[in-house]
Order: sequence, then C-alpha cells, then structure tokens
Amino acid sequence: MILTVTLNTALDITYRVRGLRPHSSHRVSEVTERPGGKGLNVGRVLAALGHEVTVTGFTGGATGRVVRDRLAESAGVVDALVPVGGSTRRTIAVVDTTTGDTTQLNEPGPVITPAEWAAFQETYGHLLRSASAVALCGSLPPGVPVGAYAGLVRTARTAGVPVLLDTSGEPLRRGVAARPDLVKPNAEELAELTGSHEPSRATQDARRRGARAVVASLGPHGLLAVAPEGCWRAVPPAREHGNPTGAGDSAVAGLLSGLVEQLSWPDRLMRAVALSAAAVRSPAAGEFDRAAYEKMLARVSVTAA
Amino acid sequence: MILTVTLNTALDITYRVRGLRPHSSHRVSEVTERPGGKGLNVGRVLAALGHEVTVTGFTGGATGRVVRDRLAESAGVVDALVPVGGSTRRTIAVVDTTTGDTTQLNEPGPVITPAEWAAFQETYGHLLRSASAVALCGSLPPGVPVGAYAGLVRTARTAGVPVLLDTSGEPLRRGVAARPDLVKPNAEELAELTGSHEPSRATQDARRRGARAVVASLGPHGLLAVAPEGCWRAVPPAREHGNPTGAGDSAVAGLLSGLVEQLSWPDRLMRAVALSAAAVRSPAAGEFDRAAYEKMLARVSVTAA
Repeated sequence: MILTVTLNTALDITYRVRGLRPHSSHRVSEVTERPGGKGLNVGRVLAALGHEVTVTGFTGGATGRVVRDRLAESAGVVDALVPVGGSTRRTIAVVDTTTGDTTQLNEPGPVITPAEWAAFQETYGHLLRSASAVALCGSLPPGVPVGAYAGLVRTARTAGVPVLLDTSGEPLRRGVAARPDLVKPNAEELAELTGSHEPSRATQDARRRGARAVVASLGPHGLLAVAPEGCWRAVPPAREHGNPTGAGDSAVAGLLSGLVEQLSWPDRLMRAVALSAAAVRSPAAGEFDRAAYEKMLARVSVTAA
Repeated sequence: MILTVTLNTALDITYRVRGLRPHSSHRVSEVTERPGGKGLNVGRVLAALGHEVTVTGFTGGATGRVVRDRLAESAGVVDALVPVGGSTRRTIAVVDTTTGDTTQLNEPGPVITPAEWAAFQETYGHLLRSASAVALCGSLPPGVPVGAYAGLVRTARTAGVPVLLDTSGEPLRRGVAARPDLVKPNAEELAELTGSHEPSRATQDARRRGARAVVASLGPHGLLAVAPEGCWRAVPPAREHGNPTGAGDSAVAGLLSGLVEQLSWPDRLMRAVALSAAAVRSPAAGEFDRAAYEKMLARVSVTAA
C-alpha cells in the first residue's frame, strides 16, 4: 500500500455567502464538509486511481469524529489515524457567490503532547513495513517539533521506503536536509526555501539542499522536474478555471502513483499535470473530474528542460 | 421550573484573527466554542440567577453533540432537547483583533421534518405541565412552519403558563397575534413589526397587535415597557463597552425571572437592564459579570413613561 501522513488533519468546511463584508452579519446559504488536510486529499486521489492507501496522522474531538466518519465513506482508504486529546482543526472557506472569491479561515489545530507524538512515530514505523511509498504532507500542528519531517524522512529511508515531502517553511527546510526522494514545493514555497524567485535556479538549489528530485508546481504553468535522470517541464494544454485548492495534492498523488508503478519521469509528470488540471475542475480538494483527467492525459506537453 | 425553547440551537464559535481581509487566507489565533441560540443563553442566565431551568428545542449531528456536552457542564440547566436527523448549525463570529470588529457567519440550521416538529410539540406539551413560565426564543430552522410560535403561544396560554416571545420577522408577527404575555423586540424588530421607527408609538402598536405587554430593548438607551399596569422607561447609568451579543438574552432572563418571582414592573426592568449591562461586559452570550450586575442594580433609573 501507499502511506500518506497528515499530521494536521482538518474538517474542511465551505460556506457560500452573498457578498462578504467585514463587520457585518451573513447568512450562509450552503454548507459543505469534507475530510481535509493534504495527505487525506492525496490518499483519496490515490484510491480513486486504484491504489491501496493507508492514511495516518492525528485526529481528535468532535471534528475528528466527523473526519473519520467521512473518511470511512471513501472507498479504498484505510484509516490508521492516531487519536489525540485535542480537537482536529476546522478550515473554513467562505465563497462569495457574487464575486467567486474565497476567504480562508484556518484553525491552528490541536496541541500534540510528547506522548501523542511518540505514539504516532511508533504507528508510523509499523505502517512503513508494508508501504511501497510514503507521502508526508502539510503543516505541523502545535506541539510537534519543527524537525518532525526530517525524522520521518530518515525513518522511511532507513526502512527503504521512497518518501515524498510536501510542506513549507522551516519544516520543509529541515526535511529537505534529511534527503527525501522527492519534494514538491510550489513557487512560493520554493522561493522561501532557496531565496530565489527564478524557478529553474531555485529547483536546482533545492536539490543541492538534499532532495533526490524536486518537482516544482508552478500553478497554471505546470510542473518543473529536476531529478538525477534529467530535467523536464510539463505543461497543461490550457489554463483551467475553477477551484485550485487540491491541485497540488492531486499532483502529489500523480507523482507518487507513477513512482510506485515505475513509470518513466515524463509519464509521471503527464499524470501529475493531468490530475492537477482535472482537480481544478472539481469543486473539492481530494476529488477530480475523471473524464477531464483522461482527456487531458494525452494533451499534456512534456519537454526536456 | 422555567422552560426556554430554542428551535434553532447553535454551536457558537468565536475566531480571533489579525485583520480580516476578504479574498485572503487567515490563521485563527484563538478558537472558543459555546452552546448557543437565544433560549440556551436565557437558560444559562436564569440558572445563574438560581432558577431551575429546562431547555428544549432541536439538536442533532456532531455539532449537536458538542452543544449537549457543553450544556451538561452548565449547572442548573436540564437538557430536554429533541434529537433530529440534521446537524445543529454553527455560528462563527470572526473578531478582528486589530479593530475589535466582529464579522458574523450564520449557518441556516438543519431541515426539520414534519415528524420531528410533531415530536417537539409533544415534548413541549409535557414540559409545560411543570413550567412556571416559558420563553420562546430566536429564529426558526428550515422546515418549521412560519406560524410555529403562534401555535406554541396558544399551547402555553391553554396550559395557563405565562409565555414570553423573543423572535423577529414573520414568526414574530404571527406569534404576537396569538396573544403572548410578553414580547421583547429590539428597535429594528419593532420597526419591522409595526412600520414605525418611533419607539413609543411602535411599542403601543405592538400591544394592539396582541401582546399583553411589550418591552422594547433600545440598546444603550435601555428598555421601554408598555403593560396593562403602566409604561416605564429603564435606563442604565452609563453606556457599557464590550460585547453586545447576549445583552438581549440577559434582558429576557431578567424579565422572566422577575415575572416568576412576582416582582413589580420597575423591579423587573431594573433587573433586566442591569443584567443586560453586565452581559455586555462579559465575553460570551449567556454569561454575565455578577459583580457588575449587583453594582449596577441600584443604579438603573426607572421612570414612568
């Protein structure tokens, strides 16, 4: 199976309101709830691609119960989340139906105790034994040490399991130094890591910092991959309009499934770009428009960079 | 015991953020959760005043469980909420810590089925048998007929239980026509009901529409009462600064407890105004600053109007 780790799982709530005006009161016309956190989204896309997936990380409280209940409805995703005393965070996306703009409110997440962090690491070690690859995804909840991903990368490497890291800031900086097989920063995360806003230079620099391969996601401009096997640029046929949330998670699922299936780099990138574009057409992260994906697959342009 | 009815209970969530800007992403620095809905707030204040209180209405889903769990921690409040298939709504108050301004997002609430509405009415009839007074509070969730409060007022009157109605719009208009003992509109609700923005005229008009007594809450200007026994104006000694949410609910608790204790109208109004002012000083609805309340009590001015 493929393992995904989401230390800061979430209940993703979307509100639709007519015109968001600060300092006034709004009736929410529509409420949707979905299990969230990058690794859960990646897991749901992997399952939809036909892979066996186990998700782990932390979950707790009333919101955690909702996340687990909803996850149980996702076919092909095995729940190995570790219970904690605090409450799983909510993220609220307020969609203004008059403009289409989204305003995001993200709770910080539960404070993880040292005992809970130790319990997670034990679970993680057990799960790695039957994993063909692992993705470490998203932000760290309060209480988890900033070097957490670096440790989890090393554990995976020791276990001989290919490891993909998708995070930002200091956890990314430390994680990269632990030599993951693949990192997938977006342009902003890459610039923050390397200090360079020039994607090609920044991607090379991120490799020098320790990542075996770097795939930078450049929004509508597709992906830029730098690996020991070569450098490629993969571009979607047209700019997609819709919901960009979850496009990055779909790209991670594409890269990771391609790695496990031992696809060539160009094929992995084609899949990742097509999944990203299909995710933009879908209303929720962790879902994609399958017809759009299959149609797109042949139309992604991959060129040596 | 005193009965309070909250058909649209809520989980009241408060977020603190640094600067709310539409179309951007925000980290919430602090999250607080409390059981909400006007009748639950009224019930908690009544219990704090030493009254036996039973709360009823609807509750359901994961948010409903949190509301019930929190309510169980409120000493003196008996939970007689009726379970429903839908989920209790959330209300989110986003407090901008840079300006102190609050932006409110209110979910609509669960759709109540005809069977659930019938189950509630049966529970309500049973509870009235041991009630010394009843307060009908707040908005109606989807599925409950717009004339709901009119029916509940009539049931209370038939049972010989004094009934206070605190709602707005069409449910208030229909409820008033069913001749409740007391309505407590704010200035806006009163103007919507009567078409008049002149409080004295509007309050008289609301009585003519069927309410035995009308107490209009005029924000920092206190209360205006029109009853068969006379007319009074009750004014707090100074304008309070703080959180006005729940001031109206505290006034309802003051009026209802005063009615049950057979206080004179001036004493009821003094209590209601002092509780309102003390609630403004408290960070959450359904709570009040007891020292401020007791100090304020002697300083409220009540004059015949």
